[in-house]
Amino acid sequence: MVRVGILGATGYAGAEAVRILAMHPYFKVTAVASKSFEGSVFSDIYTNMKGVCDLVCDSSDIEAIAAKADCFISALPHAASQKIVASLIGAGKKVVDLSADFRYSSAETYERTYGVGHEFPELLKTAVYGLPEIARIKIKEAALIANPGCYPTCSILGLAPLITSGLISTGSININAVSGVSGAGRKADLNYQYCETDGNFAPYKIIGHRHTTEIEEQLSALMGNPVVVGFTPHLAPFKRGMLATIYVDTNTQSSTEELISIYKEYYKGEYFIRIREKGDIPSVKAVAGTNFADITPLYDERLGRIIIISAIDNLGKGASSQAVQNLNIMYGFDEKSGIAGAGLYI
Amino acid sequence: MVRVGILGATGYAGAEAVRILAMHPYFKVTAVASKSFEGSVFSDIYTNMKGVCDLVCDSSDIEAIAAKADCFISALPHAASQKIVASLIGAGKKVVDLSADFRYSSAETYERTYGVGHEFPELLKTAVYGLPEIARIKIKEAALIANPGCYPTCSILGLAPLITSGLISTGSININAVSGVSGAGRKADLNYQYCETDGNFAPYKIIGHRHTTEIEEQLSALMGNPVVVGFTPHLAPFKRGMLATIYVDTNTQSSTEELISIYKEYYKGEYFIRIREKGDIPSVKAVAGTNFADITPLYDERLGRIIIISAIDNLGKGASSQAVQNLNIMYGFDEKSGIAGAGLYI
Amino acid sequence: MVRVGILGATGYAGAEAVRILAMHPYFKVTAVASKSFEGSVFSDIYTNMKGVCDLVCDSSDIEAIAAKADCFISALPHAASQKIVASLIGAGKKVVDLSADFRYSSAETYERTYGVGHEFPELLKTAVYGLPEIARIKIKEAALIANPGCYPTCSILGLAPLITSGLISTGSININAVSGVSGAGRKADLNYQYCETDGNFAPYKIIGHRHTTEIEEQLSALMGNPVVVGFTPHLAPFKRGMLATIYVDTNTQSSTEELISIYKEYYKGEYFIRIREKGDIPSVKAVAGTNFADITPLYDERLGRIIIISAIDNLGKGASSQAVQNLNIMYGFDEKSGIAGAGLYI
Amino acid sequence: MVRVGILGATGYAGAEAVRILAMHPYFKVTAVASKSFEGSVFSDIYTNMKGVCDLVCDSSDIEAIAAKADCFISALPHAASQKIVASLIGAGKKVVDLSADFRYSSAETYERTYGVGHEFPELLKTAVYGLPEIARIKIKEAALIANPGCYPTCSILGLAPLITSGLISTGSININAVSGVSGAGRKADLNYQYCETDGNFAPYKIIGHRHTTEIEEQLSALMGNPVVVGFTPHLAPFKRGMLATIYVDTNTQSSTEELISIYKEYYKGEYFIRIREKGDIPSVKAVAGTNFADITPLYDERLGRIIIISAIDNLGKGASSQAVQNLNIMYGFDEKSGIAGAGLYI
Repeated sequence: MVRVGILGATGYAGAEAVRILAMHPYFKVTAVASKSFEGSVFSDIYTNMKGVCDLVCDSSDIEAIAAKADCFISALPHAASQKIVASLIGAGKKVVDLSADFRYSSAETYERTYGVGHEFPELLKTAVYGLPEIARIKIKEAALIANPGCYPTCSILGLAPLITSGLISTGSININAVSGVSGAGRKADLNYQYCETDGNFAPYKIIGHRHTTEIEEQLSALMGNPVVVGFTPHLAPFKRGMLATIYVDTNTQSSTEELISIYKEYYKGEYFIRIREKGDIPSVKAVAGTNFADITPLYDERLGRIIIISAIDNLGKGASSQAVQNLNIMYGFDEKSGIAGAGLYI
Repeated sequence: MVRVGILGATGYAGAEAVRILAMHPYFKVTAVASKSFEGSVFSDIYTNMKGVCDLVCDSSDIEAIAAKADCFISALPHAASQKIVASLIGAGKKVVDLSADFRYSSAETYERTYGVGHEFPELLKTAVYGLPEIARIKIKEAALIANPGCYPTCSILGLAPLITSGLISTGSININAVSGVSGAGRKADLNYQYCETDGNFAPYKIIGHRHTTEIEEQLSALMGNPVVVGFTPHLAPFKRGMLATIYVDTNTQSSTEELISIYKEYYKGEYFIRIREKGDIPSVKAVAGTNFADITPLYDERLGRIIIISAIDNLGKGASSQAVQNLNIMYGFDEKSGIAGAGLYI
Repeated sequence: MVRVGILGATGYAGAEAVRILAMHPYFKVTAVASKSFEGSVFSDIYTNMKGVCDLVCDSSDIEAIAAKADCFISALPHAASQKIVASLIGAGKKVVDLSADFRYSSAETYERTYGVGHEFPELLKTAVYGLPEIARIKIKEAALIANPGCYPTCSILGLAPLITSGLISTGSININAVSGVSGAGRKADLNYQYCETDGNFAPYKIIGHRHTTEIEEQLSALMGNPVVVGFTPHLAPFKRGMLATIYVDTNTQSSTEELISIYKEYYKGEYFIRIREKGDIPSVKAVAGTNFADITPLYDERLGRIIIISAIDNLGKGASSQAVQNLNIMYGFDEKSGIAGAGLYI
Repeated sequence: MVRVGILGATGYAGAEAVRILAMHPYFKVTAVASKSFEGSVFSDIYTNMKGVCDLVCDSSDIEAIAAKADCFISALPHAASQKIVASLIGAGKKVVDLSADFRYSSAETYERTYGVGHEFPELLKTAVYGLPEIARIKIKEAALIANPGCYPTCSILGLAPLITSGLISTGSININAVSGVSGAGRKADLNYQYCETDGNFAPYKIIGHRHTTEIEEQLSALMGNPVVVGFTPHLAPFKRGMLATIYVDTNTQSSTEELISIYKEYYKGEYFIRIREKGDIPSVKAVAGTNFADITPLYDERLGRIIIISAIDNLGKGASSQAVQNLNIMYGFDEKSGIAGAGLYI
């Protein structure tokens, strides 16, 4: 068993990583670190975990933590992750970082987007953007994986086959996305109180959401020239899951059937990508609690517009189960180990 | 008191009309008709109404019904509404029809969109599309009001100031809309069972939803030449309310401030239209249970794109309270009578 | 119009009082006070109220506030209410207090239950426990009304006919009650975050909830000798409403029909009490957003047990609309003014 | 791999069994039978299962089905299960039956409770009531397991330590229970439409729910003499999970600490029973999606009453994962195989 430690273990993404890894056939959770809950029993905070993971939360004292595991998932917030991840890498550990700290190729884009400085720009060169279906080979060799953001995972997986198909030109991509409330994290915040959120629906950060630059950087790399996207996130009253409705105008005649066939070809053999047939529309329910991405493209002949529906679990494929997928690849395990199951339908 | 009858009273929109009118200062509900529940006490079906409206449901026998009230709201489904509405109009009654049967200026568009024939094309000439903020004067004089669809109400109110501003050209309007589950109506349908819907989110009728032609006809009339729109509806897990995120590309330089000022000017004096200030984003919660439409435009300078957020209650401003607003206007009452209140915040 | 001020106006109960009174035919909201939001526009906090109540929140400076209205609803927390209520009473104002501060006949019970001292025990003598269906005559004459707690309103209304019927002896009353999340108030609290509450259900304060003594004091007064009750509250994932399932063992043979007839007789002429017929079970949905209490008793012959189901809206009949009902009585208005309507069914 | 077939595979309990067994290390799902969906691909009905179980649904032709698997879980409704289960047993297959058809020791109690005849009373003698924590040894040897009902599982596990402790006498047990909506099964039913259920809470079958006799028979067997219980089920707006608040009056002095110690001793070594410490209250959230039962007893000294809180997942420990637990035992596998994990916290 490979020993794995989780930093920021008591946030939602961290706790989800603990939950998944607690049942993993090849990893054993040997450390859970939490600044807020140092000294508490993990299963006193997440009562669902009683009997499943009863470890005591460590502080984030890097020396002590590093000794406890062979590899780490860091679920610390952006900026907080940088230093501790750098130390762990320095100590020869493998790390999957869920924050944005190592997702950009340039410190400048990071700093412009997140408004904080980057202290380890040299690590950006070796960090691999961990979207396995696109960068599997690099992930295999990497010590540091920058786990993609949830909206970027959903958007990039939905657009990659089209971007690389030659069917579209840049400049016409518009992403309308909807996330469940867990995306806001685990904290006491009036805006996400039950009575404020239930029965509500609204967009937020309508212009300038941080994930925009992440999506653009990755799509530009796939396309080979600069891609600009519109991105409008919304909050909906469900706990987990995410769906993007992506609009791409095109001058090339196509059909839904042709698009589906392009998508199927692109993702051939990918267990976690389910290209839905015509008329079988992706939904949050079908992916919640899983590492699957459900995608289907449609062609609107009247408007000359391609519409792609892409759905993932923001905490799963958009965070923690994708982190485990990355760990599986890094260690040469079957990529599906511990994350192959279907979600609860109800 | 003006006597009012509700046809299709046991559907959600019909029942909402009964609920509103039961407390109205100038109308008295004297008949509730329901094919499915003829002979039942209305408050045995809607137990919230016990003591508030305990009328026995009539059949839809047109002769009997016509004598019972001075005016009617028909909440019958499309196609089912045509004949009975025509009869009531023939009998000299005023009617607000919630179905699509009299919303189009041409029978051809109706027939193409709804796939059923129109037996009373001459009535299409006199029927008024009942969006009070746009057609108040005509509504005042009309005997037959075609109450707008929910998505069209939300979309048209959100676009009218821009359409008439000269800031945009046609062909670039894309409407992404989200509705609560009550939009599917009251019927036993596996797709809308609690366990199927809760925690879920997905688009439906991604291409070719019926409201598209209704929106296009009205916007074209406002614009003075043909307008084409993309329209993608989604279903979200809340009961009532609706929000549209509308994208309009423009070559004209603008600003959020300028747009808000255009919108405020256009809707000056309109009680039910609340143009939200910059940073104050419309939400379903703020309009659910009301006749308000909350709207705000934004200008995305980077993309040269205007984004309009428009929120209404699909059963309120998108159906029954707008029907009451129309009745108020038709009878010369204060337009706000019985529908002026704020919604339950929680 | 009688001028009314709301203290603690930005909590859920306060805001609900503002919402109801904004549409009231005889009261005009002239002051909204909020310690946390002094200086803010009320409708910036409760965006549903834009255009309906745009008053600026006052501080709770008692002198300034007192001059602004003829009567007040205080929605301040217990202990915080005492002094300001006493001042307003001293200034000759009528007050309905939603806190527990004036609900007990003795300061001792209050102090034991709430763990804080009572500085105005003499006011306890003149304060009237404001359950209109039981104490209407006293309410008419009172200057200070202690508005009942939500669980007590639900429980006492459900038990009063039985308690006074002679059918039961003391000592066998067991109240199992379930509340919506709004009962926890409006505050940033991790326990009531959407992701923590949605999909969850659990009891809390299983032994010793504060409302126990309030229920016991009132039932004892009705019975004429000491009544002891078991009371177990639960939290369920809905926003507003409350339902109690009350078990009373009895040695007297009875029948559901007889019990219903006793309940109907007891509440004859009471608009807001709806005794449900056999087989018509009260539900949260039927009362949410209203001032109604829906009640039905059943007789379980096999067990010799009476079961009473009682449902109210915790923010309505359990708080703010009952406060308005009390104000209506205190001012001699039609008791139903502004609160007669049915709730949103959906 | 042992081949397992699921009958009634497209109901919620059946589908949950398929989901669990699709990832099981020792069982392989080789047949899914569904009367309503014969010929359909299972993952077209449950879209979450795409790529995980894409079997075509068989009819329930018993000959054909029997050949396809070594053992079966029947998730058919009561009465429908009898004959097919008897045939499978006759064909030498092992069967876990989720219906009530083989739960009673006498056909008479079954017939009185369910209002249908029993055609295979001799099978009642060999069928084992499959509550592993109580009947593990018998389960090991059985060919036919009657999987317990959800409410009975929750209630009996919550009461067994107390019933066998000698602390209480009969006649004073009152079970107040709350279930999620999945308990109503998968069917188009107006009562469980999203708009009817969301935001609602109510009791149902307040007197005479069928599970009462099942609970009484099992508790009587544990006690050694007849036990009578009150049982009141409620429906709450969440999808899965169940919680019982059980009241037991006692004349014996006790303490919460003593009770917890009795419960811990009784369930010593039971992985799936988590006795919660004082102050750590069971909740639906902690058990949803799992095979755990979370239980804690409290002693209310003032009332001389023991209160037990017991929570399970109605589809998990109350149905399908318990069926898998039974299969694990019947085949001598590690009892936790495939069902050991914690539930999604969010």
